[in-house]
Amino acid sequence: MRATLLLALIFLSLSAQAQAPSQGQLEALTEKHWQSSLGLLLEIVSMPNEAVYPEQIEVNIQWCEEQFAKREWTAERLATGGIPLLLVQKNQAKASKTILFYFHVDGQAVDISKWDQEDAYVPVLKTRSSASAWEPMPLAHLKTSYDPEWRIYARSVSDDKGPLAMFISAWDALTEAGLAPDYNLKIILDFEEEQGSPKLPAAVSQYREKLSADLMLIMDGPRHTSNEPTLSYGARGISDMTLTTYGPRVPQHSGHYGNYAPNPALLLAQLLASMKDSEGRVIIPGFYEGIDFSDSEREIFSKVPDNEPAVQKRLGIGRTDQVGKNYQESINYPSLNIRGMSSGYTGAQATTIIPAVAVAELDMRLVPESDPDRLYRLIDAHIASQGFHILDHDPTDEERLRYPKIVKLEKSVSYQAFRTPIDSEAGAWLREAMQRALGKPPVQIRISGGSIPISPFVDALEIPAVVIPTVNADNNQHSPNENLRLGNYKEGIVTVLAILTESFL
Amino acid sequence: MRATLLLALIFLSLSAQAQAPSQGQLEALTEKHWQSSLGLLLEIVSMPNEAVYPEQIEVNIQWCEEQFAKREWTAERLATGGIPLLLVQKNQAKASKTILFYFHVDGQAVDISKWDQEDAYVPVLKTRSSASAWEPMPLAHLKTSYDPEWRIYARSVSDDKGPLAMFISAWDALTEAGLAPDYNLKIILDFEEEQGSPKLPAAVSQYREKLSADLMLIMDGPRHTSNEPTLSYGARGISDMTLTTYGPRVPQHSGHYGNYAPNPALLLAQLLASMKDSEGRVIIPGFYEGIDFSDSEREIFSKVPDNEPAVQKRLGIGRTDQVGKNYQESINYPSLNIRGMSSGYTGAQATTIIPAVAVAELDMRLVPESDPDRLYRLIDAHIASQGFHILDHDPTDEERLRYPKIVKLEKSVSYQAFRTPIDSEAGAWLREAMQRALGKPPVQIRISGGSIPISPFVDALEIPAVVIPTVNADNNQHSPNENLRLGNYKEGIVTVLAILTESFL
Repeated sequence: MRATLLLALIFLSLSAQAQAPSQGQLEALTEKHWQSSLGLLLEIVSMPNEAVYPEQIEVNIQWCEEQFAKREWTAERLATGGIPLLLVQKNQAKASKTILFYFHVDGQAVDISKWDQEDAYVPVLKTRSSASAWEPMPLAHLKTSYDPEWRIYARSVSDDKGPLAMFISAWDALTEAGLAPDYNLKIILDFEEEQGSPKLPAAVSQYREKLSADLMLIMDGPRHTSNEPTLSYGARGISDMTLTTYGPRVPQHSGHYGNYAPNPALLLAQLLASMKDSEGRVIIPGFYEGIDFSDSEREIFSKVPDNEPAVQKRLGIGRTDQVGKNYQESINYPSLNIRGMSSGYTGAQATTIIPAVAVAELDMRLVPESDPDRLYRLIDAHIASQGFHILDHDPTDEERLRYPKIVKLEKSVSYQAFRTPIDSEAGAWLREAMQRALGKPPVQIRISGGSIPISPFVDALEIPAVVIPTVNADNNQHSPNENLRLGNYKEGIVTVLAILTESFL
Repeated sequence: MRATLLLALIFLSLSAQAQAPSQGQLEALTEKHWQSSLGLLLEIVSMPNEAVYPEQIEVNIQWCEEQFAKREWTAERLATGGIPLLLVQKNQAKASKTILFYFHVDGQAVDISKWDQEDAYVPVLKTRSSASAWEPMPLAHLKTSYDPEWRIYARSVSDDKGPLAMFISAWDALTEAGLAPDYNLKIILDFEEEQGSPKLPAAVSQYREKLSADLMLIMDGPRHTSNEPTLSYGARGISDMTLTTYGPRVPQHSGHYGNYAPNPALLLAQLLASMKDSEGRVIIPGFYEGIDFSDSEREIFSKVPDNEPAVQKRLGIGRTDQVGKNYQESINYPSLNIRGMSSGYTGAQATTIIPAVAVAELDMRLVPESDPDRLYRLIDAHIASQGFHILDHDPTDEERLRYPKIVKLEKSVSYQAFRTPIDSEAGAWLREAMQRALGKPPVQIRISGGSIPISPFVDALEIPAVVIPTVNADNNQHSPNENLRLGNYKEGIVTVLAILTESFL
């Protein structure tokens, strides 16, 4: 058989030359382990893993401990005061450097009524039957056939158990070939990521020595929407803000007091409108300060194969905010987004009142230039310049009468942004591995729009961090019918193999 | 006994002189009938009367038919296609003119869990036990004692069955004294007012000949907050508007698309903010056109004993909208009020999205100068000037891409304003009767802020209309623990007696 012959050649060539394996060799290694890789994937997604149920998570933690133990890694639970983190390690003789991988093992909640299968933890194999329809097939087909377009449907299969299965499969393929990386490996497993990793920042600080490494690689999130191999050098941070404005103490009849009692929804609308121009740009002075792009950075943006007309058509938008000149540039700025707004009642519940309060929920996505404390100071000053008195509590009767315009402002910073320079050593090293794995240079994302809890590591360990997304962008992450394209799973294993065989001395 | 002696004198004096009875005589007549007046009040409020239950309303209609029949009035149901109106009439020999009274007999819904009594249709007598607390007393106390500050608690006791009980009681007192008005009487009873009287405008048009009269008197609504005798010469009309703005077709991840996909809540905030200035004044050109006050009108405003600092303290507002120079002037302008607003989620449900839509519910209170069609044209032009394309439906995919900014605008006019000149004959006639009833001139309200469905009568019958409010302003109308102050009930009977004995030739 062709594969067997090829493998024999690989072993010969690898042991003889101690050179990094070629794309063909990596593919052959992956092929050899394909059946056991699929078994691992189906096994890992069959464990329910919603972190609001610690008993579910315990099963997942023990599975990870067993899997790494039988591969002769050490494993240690890092106590956090809540659900622990799991640190697994494998040192190499004579290695001096260490790479720290990050995965999370918990998953989003499941509303099974919205899934097209009976159980989100019983994986289903599907093939496309029309442009928008998918048809289930017996899992047994995987034993004899392969189509990269087939998909496995299960909760967490893409986010983020699939990437962990890629890693373990690649490790097995590597060791069976008698190979090993020339650096030490640590993996931090997060079991509470979908809950915002509330204990993680403090734990990273507490365990910084145990976690110490030279480079951090995050295997989470989808590839670029083109499904081309992707490297993402950072992610925006995230912080929240709640604004509450006040009208009469209790809702009042809009006939008796319309034109007399100030309307809190109008106050809120005026305040929000004062923050941005008609093109969606923040007009609070200093908000975008420090953000500037070199020609080479602009070139990186332009090389990302975004099909903006297609995106706009899919979103149903006839224009875009004009924060940056294109999509990539836009997400390199901090955002100020109204994620929710409410006052009184709308629809069938609407009633003729002047509401008592109006509330806006905002989120700010952060970039490294935008220290959230600085942004909050700018926002405070802006709100004050609009004539509002800022409180951190609902106004007392006395404050209501003393201040003509009051806003309650509640703030929280979840975590900050991180961004590793594209022209860093880490970047060059990864590009080399990716090129070898997949035969072409990766799409390079300077910073991703979404947020992942990586800045605590970057800040505490003082190391560069890069995200290696592997799963298909249309994986329905966080939604019903989460899935993983088989071609992405296979290429993910090849990618990990390339990284594990890339020299890091 | 003093009352009996007084009554004997009244009879003598009235029959001898055919003069309008004095305040003392009216009070004596009221006193004589006080016990039966209380009985009537307790009886009328014991019938549930929520108009969403036609079977409840039928009981009330039959009760009215029986009550007027036994007093030798004629009664006729006016079919409306829904719950009928009831027209009752009593002609007088030699009378040439007719006064049409309006009452409504249906009541607001009851959420009994929020009442301090077991059943909102089982009236409870209460006395004040502290500044904010009321203590129940046996109803039997009414047989032997009287305190004007006592209150009857029951649904509709103020809004609007109490005024109807005042009228019937006054009629009985009048006829027992052998007196009669020198004009014909019609009463239109509305059984669907709390549902917005949806069938009334068409019915008034259809039955305009049956309803024809020379003057319309509306007994509904509370007196001025000072609880001084009050006449209200008009009421604002009301119309609604729903604005919907659009972002991405479905909610999008605020990380992936923040700074790119336009946010509908921001669009809505900007649109709403563009309509009013920081002092709550509408800045849409022409919105207040035609509204102007003469010196004598301003004097009428200034004579209303509004205690604005007290009102502001009660509402908990540190400033007021600056539409007019004072409360009375302000409600003589049309209003544009945001009664509800929503987009995405707030509070615990808040999630990091760019919402798909944002909705604002607005109501406009109308004055006679503000034809709603004209205001809507101005609003349309203003919205267009802000760069929005106006639709009457959710945008199609094609419209989404064609128009950069879209708003869906839904409008409806419930009914228009009415206002009778204060210096009209009707005004002078009523002031005369009120002065005789209560020994002082009434507080005069040029137009009330709230809305009542009277303009259809004014327009179809071409007659002046004036509101005679009688109940206490703190009656908890539309809320739990609705009540009627006994002193107001008694003065209301005296007031009706004065009107029925005022010559209208």
